[in-house]
Amino acid sequence: MTDVPMTARTAASAGATSAGTVGEVLSGHLTAQAGAFLRALPQAVGEAGSRPGERSVAAGSGAAGTAELLRCVRRIGGALHTFAAAFDCGWAEETRTELRWLLDLLAQEPAYLRRSVRLLAALDSLSETDPAGPGMLAGHTGAPKARALLERQLTLARTRAHTALLQELRSARLHALADRMTLLASDVPLLPSAVAQDGEVLLPQAAAALTALTAGAHQLPLLRAATPYGGEGLHRLGAPQAPQPLLPSARGPESPVRPAARAQGVDADTVVAADDAPWHRVRILVKRARYALEVCGAPSEELDLLDRTLDRHQEAADAAVTVATAARTPRITPATAYVLGVVHADQRLEVEAARYAFGRQWPNLPHHGWHEWATA
Amino acid sequence: MTDVPMTARTAASAGATSAGTVGEVLSGHLTAQAGAFLRALPQAVGEAGSRPGERSVAAGSGAAGTAELLRCVRRIGGALHTFAAAFDCGWAEETRTELRWLLDLLAQEPAYLRRSVRLLAALDSLSETDPAGPGMLAGHTGAPKARALLERQLTLARTRAHTALLQELRSARLHALADRMTLLASDVPLLPSAVAQDGEVLLPQAAAALTALTAGAHQLPLLRAATPYGGEGLHRLGAPQAPQPLLPSARGPESPVRPAARAQGVDADTVVAADDAPWHRVRILVKRARYALEVCGAPSEELDLLDRTLDRHQEAADAAVTVATAARTPRITPATAYVLGVVHADQRLEVEAARYAFGRQWPNLPHHGWHEWATA
Repeated sequence: MTDVPMTARTAASAGATSAGTVGEVLSGHLTAQAGAFLRALPQAVGEAGSRPGERSVAAGSGAAGTAELLRCVRRIGGALHTFAAAFDCGWAEETRTELRWLLDLLAQEPAYLRRSVRLLAALDSLSETDPAGPGMLAGHTGAPKARALLERQLTLARTRAHTALLQELRSARLHALADRMTLLASDVPLLPSAVAQDGEVLLPQAAAALTALTAGAHQLPLLRAATPYGGEGLHRLGAPQAPQPLLPSARGPESPVRPAARAQGVDADTVVAADDAPWHRVRILVKRARYALEVCGAPSEELDLLDRTLDRHQEAADAAVTVATAARTPRITPATAYVLGVVHADQRLEVEAARYAFGRQWPNLPHHGWHEWATA
Repeated sequence: MTDVPMTARTAASAGATSAGTVGEVLSGHLTAQAGAFLRALPQAVGEAGSRPGERSVAAGSGAAGTAELLRCVRRIGGALHTFAAAFDCGWAEETRTELRWLLDLLAQEPAYLRRSVRLLAALDSLSETDPAGPGMLAGHTGAPKARALLERQLTLARTRAHTALLQELRSARLHALADRMTLLASDVPLLPSAVAQDGEVLLPQAAAALTALTAGAHQLPLLRAATPYGGEGLHRLGAPQAPQPLLPSARGPESPVRPAARAQGVDADTVVAADDAPWHRVRILVKRARYALEVCGAPSEELDLLDRTLDRHQEAADAAVTVATAARTPRITPATAYVLGVVHADQRLEVEAARYAFGRQWPNLPHHGWHEWATA
């Protein structure tokens, strides 16, 4: 089933534009993104400054600049990775490092906010007593305490992320990155040898991003994920799976993706992290492939959907870690710990649900003619 | 989708035998079952006596007599219910009451044993550290304590059930029931007016059992259950569901099955029990329909499958209650309580998985010509 994305439709019929030279295509894209970056940056700085860390309950509401900045950072970084051949290697590598740094810095506070919303909503739903739809923890005495504990710990984490962000927004490092973006917005530093090439040479490079995604997805236990309620989100994490029939070269006899699960004396955090790792990796590959299609002017709606599914996977996995950590807080009551156990399992169930959704969406990807691109 | 079981195939083509009179069909069936009951009874008594309650870890291994006795009790009770018109009303009612009493008595100890096996296996799987398939609680410090707690409480419950069984196996009440079965094995007390009737009159009575099952299944939230990972096993228990399009008369505007969930100040045990109740009721209806088909000589494999699915539903639901109860044990550690929370959610996930399986199996029931039977 997983060979569908590799079958044929021509790049032209997929709507991929090869109109223009490499210089025109990449400059057009990167100039626009860098311009958007420079417009969003002061807005994001203003948002962060106007948000009192401690009381920023609704930080999401006034974070349009931050969201836009994240959007640009991801796209510029993706283009520099996928179309690296057109840029000076050292410059592109440095710029990507700096973009990743800003991404990590910017993404944390909104991530904690979303995690807080997700976990408190799950807890409220589980402990809901409304007769119209009560939860399995309806009226449980541990629920309010568990809620307060999670809220306190996530607010603290968010405040720390906010403080770190405020500090770095004044840093020389950010100014240097802004200077790089100013350069990119006016004059994209392409290799002279690449500038005049036909834009069609970008297609095999985009195809490589799509091939990397396909190879990554083939390493996922999609057959296992496609069985609803296999219980795999809780049991048998990282268990060896039936070999996938296609692209055998993409996975050796020893899967390289779960080294931790192979070690003796594993602990829960390690095995869960090892089980999630290949999915998190495919999430990055989906984003790269998605941005590569955007550069080529090809439709990317299906990848947008996969991207959202794997974002959900990542957020549920991160939320589960937060709950497990909260449950190790000293001196909590057994009732609190019990509720946290239920919420933890609930988030791992969300992880499993996201994997199931991915397993359903992946084989239905329409044929993007990626195969032809690779040999274009 | 749920109208499939009502569509047509003739009783004859379904293999239902109407060869013989009512007397021949019912006597043949009940004589055989009562004979098997009388052979299994001393064996079951021997098994119970030879099992030292406290140390009966492997009680399941030597319980073939008990299992056979349970099998006969269920079938005789089912036949007396479904074909009540052929028997003296008072006698059949009394006999069914006594059979239900024995069923409750006999079923408890094996049920506790299965629950113990189920919960300890789930806990072991969740806390498994084998790199080949670790669980989400791998190496968790609370796992051994939670395991010991569950094992202790279930052993205690099983010992109590065993003691109660040993006492009642010597009771006058059991002797009186054995006398009833002796009568049934030699001379089934059919109404004179029914004995000579054509066996075909049993078909509408069997069809009534199947219609009751269909009506019961229509009250289940099958649309909700058919969506994998709806999270309904944990959230939104007893939530109002989209009305099912068929058999509208079987469910009024106010569903009568979840009175507790409509009360104010609900607690978790009550709402979960109310959410499970209609499924447990359908389990009984499946068994009755299955035994009715057996009497009529019609194939019942599909109902056997549904029966096993709903047995799994019941056992997971009961196991979840046991875990929730264990979590209220005073002075347990937070780590123990946390593990019990995960195990509880895991069992509710099993409940949800069983509902999903039922939702897939039910519409695929082959056409048994039940509709024609009803009008035969």
